[in-house]
Amino acid sequence: MVDIDKANQEAISRLLSAQPILVGMGLAKDVIPDMGERSLLHAGPPIDWENMSGPMRGAVMAACLYEGWAETPEEAQKIAEKGDVCFDPCHHHHAVGPMAGVTSPNMPVFIVENGDRGNKAFCSMNEGLGKVMRMGAFSPEVIEHLKWMRHILYPNLQAGVKKAFDAQGGIDLKNIMAQSLHMGDEMHNRNKAGTSLFFRAIAPFLIEAAPDVGDLPDIFRFIDKNDHFFLNLAMAAAKASTEASHGVEGSSLVTTMARNGTEMGVRISGLGDQWFTCEAALPDVLLFPGFTKDDVNRDIGDSAIMETLGIGGFALAAAPAIVQFIGGTPEDAAKYTFEMYEITMTENNTYTIPSLNFRGTPTGIDVIKVVETGITPVLDTGAAHKEPGKGQAGAGIVRMPAEAFNKAAAAFVDKYLED
Amino acid sequence: MVDIDKANQEAISRLLSAQPILVGMGLAKDVIPDMGERSLLHAGPPIDWENMSGPMRGAVMAACLYEGWAETPEEAQKIAEKGDVCFDPCHHHHAVGPMAGVTSPNMPVFIVENGDRGNKAFCSMNEGLGKVMRMGAFSPEVIEHLKWMRHILYPNLQAGVKKAFDAQGGIDLKNIMAQSLHMGDEMHNRNKAGTSLFFRAIAPFLIEAAPDVGDLPDIFRFIDKNDHFFLNLAMAAAKASTEASHGVEGSSLVTTMARNGTEMGVRISGLGDQWFTCEAALPDVLLFPGFTKDDVNRDIGDSAIMETLGIGGFALAAAPAIVQFIGGTPEDAAKYTFEMYEITMTENNTYTIPSLNFRGTPTGIDVIKVVETGITPVLDTGAAHKEPGKGQAGAGIVRMPAEAFNKAAAAFVDKYLED
Repeated sequence: MVDIDKANQEAISRLLSAQPILVGMGLAKDVIPDMGERSLLHAGPPIDWENMSGPMRGAVMAACLYEGWAETPEEAQKIAEKGDVCFDPCHHHHAVGPMAGVTSPNMPVFIVENGDRGNKAFCSMNEGLGKVMRMGAFSPEVIEHLKWMRHILYPNLQAGVKKAFDAQGGIDLKNIMAQSLHMGDEMHNRNKAGTSLFFRAIAPFLIEAAPDVGDLPDIFRFIDKNDHFFLNLAMAAAKASTEASHGVEGSSLVTTMARNGTEMGVRISGLGDQWFTCEAALPDVLLFPGFTKDDVNRDIGDSAIMETLGIGGFALAAAPAIVQFIGGTPEDAAKYTFEMYEITMTENNTYTIPSLNFRGTPTGIDVIKVVETGITPVLDTGAAHKEPGKGQAGAGIVRMPAEAFNKAAAAFVDKYLED
Repeated sequence: MVDIDKANQEAISRLLSAQPILVGMGLAKDVIPDMGERSLLHAGPPIDWENMSGPMRGAVMAACLYEGWAETPEEAQKIAEKGDVCFDPCHHHHAVGPMAGVTSPNMPVFIVENGDRGNKAFCSMNEGLGKVMRMGAFSPEVIEHLKWMRHILYPNLQAGVKKAFDAQGGIDLKNIMAQSLHMGDEMHNRNKAGTSLFFRAIAPFLIEAAPDVGDLPDIFRFIDKNDHFFLNLAMAAAKASTEASHGVEGSSLVTTMARNGTEMGVRISGLGDQWFTCEAALPDVLLFPGFTKDDVNRDIGDSAIMETLGIGGFALAAAPAIVQFIGGTPEDAAKYTFEMYEITMTENNTYTIPSLNFRGTPTGIDVIKVVETGITPVLDTGAAHKEPGKGQAGAGIVRMPAEAFNKAAAAFVDKYLED
């Protein structure tokens, strides 16, 4: 019989000892394993076009336009309907993507490597705020901006990251994340410090390596205007860390939580690649001006990888200023952190919360504790408009639905605890 | 008879409405008013060579070497002893300087202008950590580094700031400071967020304007390696803000607190340019490795301008992570903030503390409240080794001695409250 405690110790030890480092960039088709020429990766558990929500469909259409597979949104929709593209979760390719998470072959991605263990994770670059593909927008300026990111931002950033890799082995993301938690970020809905520290870290290498220094002022301004720029790096770091803890026979550690805008799904370290899914929640958000509660799509995005790592909504006590973006009071926010200690296996040894006298963040969700306590994980999240093309409606907090955890726990009991 | 409440309202209104903006840079001799060719500005109230402490003397010697007035430390000392240089407080020239605060004619300074009111303030550039002039060091590498700052850092940064001024009227320091308080800085001993946000703000302009882009990687790395870089900008911003509140007939607002390593002195809005002084305190610091309590010099520096503005030690509740640098617990640190509400006139309308539900920092020290409550201001501070040339010994907290406030309050009562 498997020793579950021991298995969980092994899984959590791999999670805590992860050393995510930004080591390079590349085009998705060149660096993400098993990505075909017509692959479209998306957030959350598997889903087909028919069941995709509005923002996910909008992002798919944007990707078809960006790739040149379609000339108009109508054509893009037809291609997707006909099955002329191949949908697959990012998570099946060591990748993650915020919101719709759509990643197409010619999109640049960050490559994050997990120290000595060496497993790699991938994430696209953050597009900025407003009408963006990840929120389901596909208008011409959205596509133009994606092309700017491909042809101007990417070659320069790629060269800078390569220079940093040659000089010092890359950019240590764990270090930046640990510092950022001491600077008011929780690293999901607030990445202002992370973005700043990454900016500081990469700037000299960018100048040394940029193919065209004349592009750099625009590039610096683009990053400076988007405090979420670091989110995609943090997500790749979190994916590299959590994936290392997956596949430990007998472990009840939750290694994936992800939402595709229709369903949310979880995976468990000791239960292989099986997804346990249920309907995705409706986030409780602070709405942007001009939007109503009825506009909000069901929960979407792989960014739940931050809470799977033990930060994001689990580290709200470190980020009192976030309530200006997500609503509520700093005291309410801190309460979520305390609650999450109830369903996690340990306190992080690197990610700490100064105001709690440097207590480690609640780390390693135990699916058994979730069902025993009836407490499900709390996530920070963005909210997309439910119609394609309308963009972001707000940002806030979302409580994961219990059903997926109940199913996973039942399967775990079935496999390991019944005779 | 003067209406003291009304006078204080006027003074505090000027303090709160200050809009400090970085508008340019220049050499001290060219931009600081009434600075002669042999002027050496220093921190704190007036003092002569005979009474200067070790670190102040060391910094004076460094400046004599930097200016080429002396070839050796011995020659530098002789020049200073003979009175061949003219000592004057920074504060007499709309300027401030951290620690020894020594500013000589050919040192570059930031020029900060206070919005519509238009009064200007000046501060040198931060030298970085370790053996530096402001801590009393004067070895050849200290002087070499000052020359690098003059001939490489300054021309590039000056060009970048000019470009920012031409494009957008300068860099809004108040905005950076307000954001930084939401990112764990208190802006005296912790300026990590301020340094990061300034880095982001200036980077594109630096690339556009730098006389030699090849210098920029070194410049970016220099700033990146020194989380205190922003302190000198924050000090100039604080000086521009507090000076606007000085000179209001009948106001008991403390508009200057400064220490020269021997004495500390205060000035009061309604009491003209008179200094009220007493022996400087001995700071209670977290010692750097290899230093002992006996090494610590008496309190030194104009950086008390941060608390005079209402942040720094007064905003410790915003900066829980600072205890890693200054010792104690986050809870202890927060207590100082609560105490400072007892001796201040108002709560800041711009500088706020997220964890206290965005309560404004305690702002505007009332000398009458200080003597009535017996509570004197608490400052964050660096500690210099008391011998010249030895550098920084630690960092911590220092409580201002009551005597200077008692003298000032007595003079205030004498002038305004006695018949």
